[in-house]
Amino acid sequence: DIVPIKRCLISVSDKTGIVELCTVLQNNYNIELLSTGGTAKKLRDSGLTVIDVSDFTGGAECLDGRVKTLHPKIHGGLLAVRGNEAHSQDMITQEMKYIDMTILNLYPFEETMKRPNVTFEQCIENIDIGGPSMMRSTAKNHVSTTIVTSPDQYSMLLNELASTNGGTTLKTRKCFASNAFCLSAKYDSMIASYFESQLAIDNAAEEATASLSQVVIPRVYKPEFELKYGVNPHQKPASILSLQGQSLPFTVINGKPGYTNLLDAANAYQLVLELKQATGLASAASFKHVSPAGAAVAVELTDIECQAYEVTEETRASLTPVSLAYLRARNADPMCSFGDFSAVSDIVDEQTALYLKKEVSDGIVAPGYTEDALEILKKKKGGKFIILTATPGYTPPVQEYREVYGMTFQQKRNDVVLTSKHMETIVTDSTKCAPITDAAIRDMIVASICVKYTQSNSVGFSKNGMMVGVGAGQQSRVDCVKLAGRKVQTWYLRQHPKVLALPFKEGVKRQDRVNARVRYIEGDFTVEEKLRWNEFFTDVPAPLTQSEKEEFLKQSTGIAISSDAFFPFRDSIDHASKLGVSYVAQPGGSVQDGNITEACNEYGIAMCMTGVRLFHH
Amino acid sequence: DIVPIKRCLISVSDKTGIVELCTVLQNNYNIELLSTGGTAKKLRDSGLTVIDVSDFTGGAECLDGRVKTLHPKIHGGLLAVRGNEAHSQDMITQEMKYIDMTILNLYPFEETMKRPNVTFEQCIENIDIGGPSMMRSTAKNHVSTTIVTSPDQYSMLLNELASTNGGTTLKTRKCFASNAFCLSAKYDSMIASYFESQLAIDNAAEEATASLSQVVIPRVYKPEFELKYGVNPHQKPASILSLQGQSLPFTVINGKPGYTNLLDAANAYQLVLELKQATGLASAASFKHVSPAGAAVAVELTDIECQAYEVTEETRASLTPVSLAYLRARNADPMCSFGDFSAVSDIVDEQTALYLKKEVSDGIVAPGYTEDALEILKKKKGGKFIILTATPGYTPPVQEYREVYGMTFQQKRNDVVLTSKHMETIVTDSTKCAPITDAAIRDMIVASICVKYTQSNSVGFSKNGMMVGVGAGQQSRVDCVKLAGRKVQTWYLRQHPKVLALPFKEGVKRQDRVNARVRYIEGDFTVEEKLRWNEFFTDVPAPLTQSEKEEFLKQSTGIAISSDAFFPFRDSIDHASKLGVSYVAQPGGSVQDGNITEACNEYGIAMCMTGVRLFHH
Repeated sequence: DIVPIKRCLISVSDKTGIVELCTVLQNNYNIELLSTGGTAKKLRDSGLTVIDVSDFTGGAECLDGRVKTLHPKIHGGLLAVRGNEAHSQDMITQEMKYIDMTILNLYPFEETMKRPNVTFEQCIENIDIGGPSMMRSTAKNHVSTTIVTSPDQYSMLLNELASTNGGTTLKTRKCFASNAFCLSAKYDSMIASYFESQLAIDNAAEEATASLSQVVIPRVYKPEFELKYGVNPHQKPASILSLQGQSLPFTVINGKPGYTNLLDAANAYQLVLELKQATGLASAASFKHVSPAGAAVAVELTDIECQAYEVTEETRASLTPVSLAYLRARNADPMCSFGDFSAVSDIVDEQTALYLKKEVSDGIVAPGYTEDALEILKKKKGGKFIILTATPGYTPPVQEYREVYGMTFQQKRNDVVLTSKHMETIVTDSTKCAPITDAAIRDMIVASICVKYTQSNSVGFSKNGMMVGVGAGQQSRVDCVKLAGRKVQTWYLRQHPKVLALPFKEGVKRQDRVNARVRYIEGDFTVEEKLRWNEFFTDVPAPLTQSEKEEFLKQSTGIAISSDAFFPFRDSIDHASKLGVSYVAQPGGSVQDGNITEACNEYGIAMCMTGVRLFHH
Repeated sequence: DIVPIKRCLISVSDKTGIVELCTVLQNNYNIELLSTGGTAKKLRDSGLTVIDVSDFTGGAECLDGRVKTLHPKIHGGLLAVRGNEAHSQDMITQEMKYIDMTILNLYPFEETMKRPNVTFEQCIENIDIGGPSMMRSTAKNHVSTTIVTSPDQYSMLLNELASTNGGTTLKTRKCFASNAFCLSAKYDSMIASYFESQLAIDNAAEEATASLSQVVIPRVYKPEFELKYGVNPHQKPASILSLQGQSLPFTVINGKPGYTNLLDAANAYQLVLELKQATGLASAASFKHVSPAGAAVAVELTDIECQAYEVTEETRASLTPVSLAYLRARNADPMCSFGDFSAVSDIVDEQTALYLKKEVSDGIVAPGYTEDALEILKKKKGGKFIILTATPGYTPPVQEYREVYGMTFQQKRNDVVLTSKHMETIVTDSTKCAPITDAAIRDMIVASICVKYTQSNSVGFSKNGMMVGVGAGQQSRVDCVKLAGRKVQTWYLRQHPKVLALPFKEGVKRQDRVNARVRYIEGDFTVEEKLRWNEFFTDVPAPLTQSEKEEFLKQSTGIAISSDAFFPFRDSIDHASKLGVSYVAQPGGSVQDGNITEACNEYGIAMCMTGVRLFHH
């Protein structure tokens, strides 16, 4: 299946490597070169012999050369079926000659389109007509002809010529033909998209002809890197691709991120950017399975919190805003944050890296890293810690596409950023309810931005600029409140004097201490479990009784709660009232809004209607 | 901007309406018609005057007509810039004539490709070369020329000709040009995809040249219908699209599904198909927010279940397999199933429709409906109940693409179907643990298929062929067990004699009874809430005490649990042991597998390693 190359047609706008390639073609393999315009000149200037396409076709120069290659002698030379008796006879009668290979690039439509101040006419002028025709003819007849469409292919071509003494194999021709049709599809997708955008501008004011113009919507992806597998090991192949003409949001600077790591990174990073934008404070998030286990902004720790989170005086004194934010994010639910994916809104400094070093974590995304921080993090997990840098000035595409079971879901991305402006519509009675402080507004914002990036249904509780309980992925709203509420109780009880005083043996691991405290608070041991738990301590601790817990929980106040959609019944408020909640942020819009507001008034909880639903799927 | 049409080039494979159109073109507007082959013959047979393209170009017939239209006189006629002095002069010198409109379709590559037993050569032969070239030339020069690519456009064209007395407007030409580039992109995407698939077959055994062949990956979508909005009301526009050459999995036969409804439908329907495939029983699922609130196969109800689910003797006697499956699915967690989206594996019959009629539900997907059932369901929700029919013989695409924050995630879909074969590797000690019955295997399958379609992390509990507790979307595994475990306790306690005997007043609504029972079981009322709760009853019921609950829960046994990934610690097993769990199915693969197995042996729980992880995002 090796076809020797005797005649080659060349027309390239990207002239990288073309002289070197053609020199080999002519000098080593005695291949005849056909070309036009700038390419012909450049090759001749390098001492090569080139036949002009117009001499080859015998066609007159006309219409500024627009139709030079749209000629039967070119396309006959490419498309004639080799070995077909009638075709061979026609080639002789019509004085046509076989062309065995085409090397070309297309006019740079995409680059033209992106030039500042470019006009519609200039873009249209840059639509290549002759190039795609030659490319498609050559690719169609790849059983006999070779289509080369990119300088990236030259070295492969040269190897092939060398190993076949001047020919190409069917395998390579087929592969190059596949590339050619991809390129053609990409090129016309880009043109079609451009027309779409122009029609949208034309039609903005008038009745849209959108339905007519949207015969198809092409999305063209460029493979960026392979993944080991998709969501599960048996889901292979899997990869990450970029949209044509759009960079990826992150660069991988260490480790090999997996599918879920990158989903976490995408959500976590958007979350911290929005927290920063809304509060002006350094922000951090700790993700697990595409929902936050915790998230926080840089608010000073209380003394009790320092004890509960095992922050030494020395560490406390050295905390920077970004390390403080991550420390808080990580301590909302340190059991869940085990093996997290982290995101921070600011440059990762040494303090943050040193704190992360101690924790079991899979990776981080940040706008950047100090040299010291990078050195520390690159050593984590035996060098496998995933480090992503966010692309500066990145803007994500407005429309998102997602395929599920052969249906494609298209929607505008959820680009609303919750700020204090959304916290202005207080519907409860100010004489009965908690006063709206700046801290309350900050905490409602924190909880709202967090639920925006939590799988729905979701409800989040926050205090001190920190998520203290996330109720994610539930099938009813009150289940979210119950679920998050239990996490809030555990978070708060971690500050109980009896928990702080647990007499751990020396050498008990950090994560084991974290888990043992939680089990102490929960208290529902099996016999077997209790025996093993006892082993962590120098003395077996006395249980934390139900009444001790209840007594301590009564001191909890000032917590804010945000719900990703309205409350359908007052049961969620009834439940929240038992958990120290003083503030509620929710979109509103239920027929029950009046009852919900009344429930808040009964319990002295201030409630704000944001008007923005935040389901996330 | 109106351009009169004087000469038109026609080449169509789909000849729908072409004679009628051309008759008007020639008789009403005196337009000269150029054509070739079958199109020319058909037009002549209808009495029209047609000039052959070869007469127009003066080119000889050769190479089986492959290069007939790839001629300067055709492309010059299309591309010449009208009003350009030099071009006008060239047109005269070269004896070229302007062509103002092209009407064409492309060779049916897609249809060819899908023909049974079609060869690679036959497909390649059907790649159109001349057609796309003419189409692109005409579209590029749309400021002067009109490109018509589909019979769908004929009526618009005729209206335009009528209103301009034989011309077209720039707006229409631009819109048609946009369509043409879309079509070209779609056509070459299809060819490129076909080459890709052929290369994949070629390379299956050898080292892949995949990276080379994947210069770009085009996905071409066809808009199917608009959605009111995406996941949230502010996410507009939003729509559902199909993949080129692939039907949608569902047809909407009533109502207007939203974004999340369709996500639910896609997941729920796959779930019930797999349950049916694995167990041979009619199956049903009740979804909320892209996770199951419940799911079940058709297993007979116990007497106590009939009481707990409010199934009368009459209803019980009339239950069909599919109505029984849905009744079970809906009763796993009837509080969560409020406003669900349902899926069933079999034709929806009248019994199922009558049961659904009583429940608050958003929609259903099924392989079909009896006439009676459809009539009942179409009246539900004031006519707005969403009814979807699954496409018969539907096969979803193997690769899935998903865009998040400008990254595109590609993976093979999770096409594994869990069956009894996956439940064969029992790792626990059979002398210490519960015997593996057929019912146990069935329940492990039910739980496993359910967690496959539950947002991760997830753990599911099942009994009697029914999910009885779903722990969805959690950030740690033991949280899934705790969460699902609480649901299991509530499910089981709904069968407690004191719950069954609750003295509801007449007229209390079904959903209020459901919710009131759950609150009775939970028992943690606020003062305000308790007063309102009391109002449901003729006499205020005595509380269900903690010890009564514990006593009753001790009778719970034989429950199966499935986890979507391995247990990292034995805490999940410790916890499950308190909930009547006798069987565990999980993928295995943790360094702690030995400890987990030991924990199961301690508690007498039989454990099976499926080897298949089932994360779902």
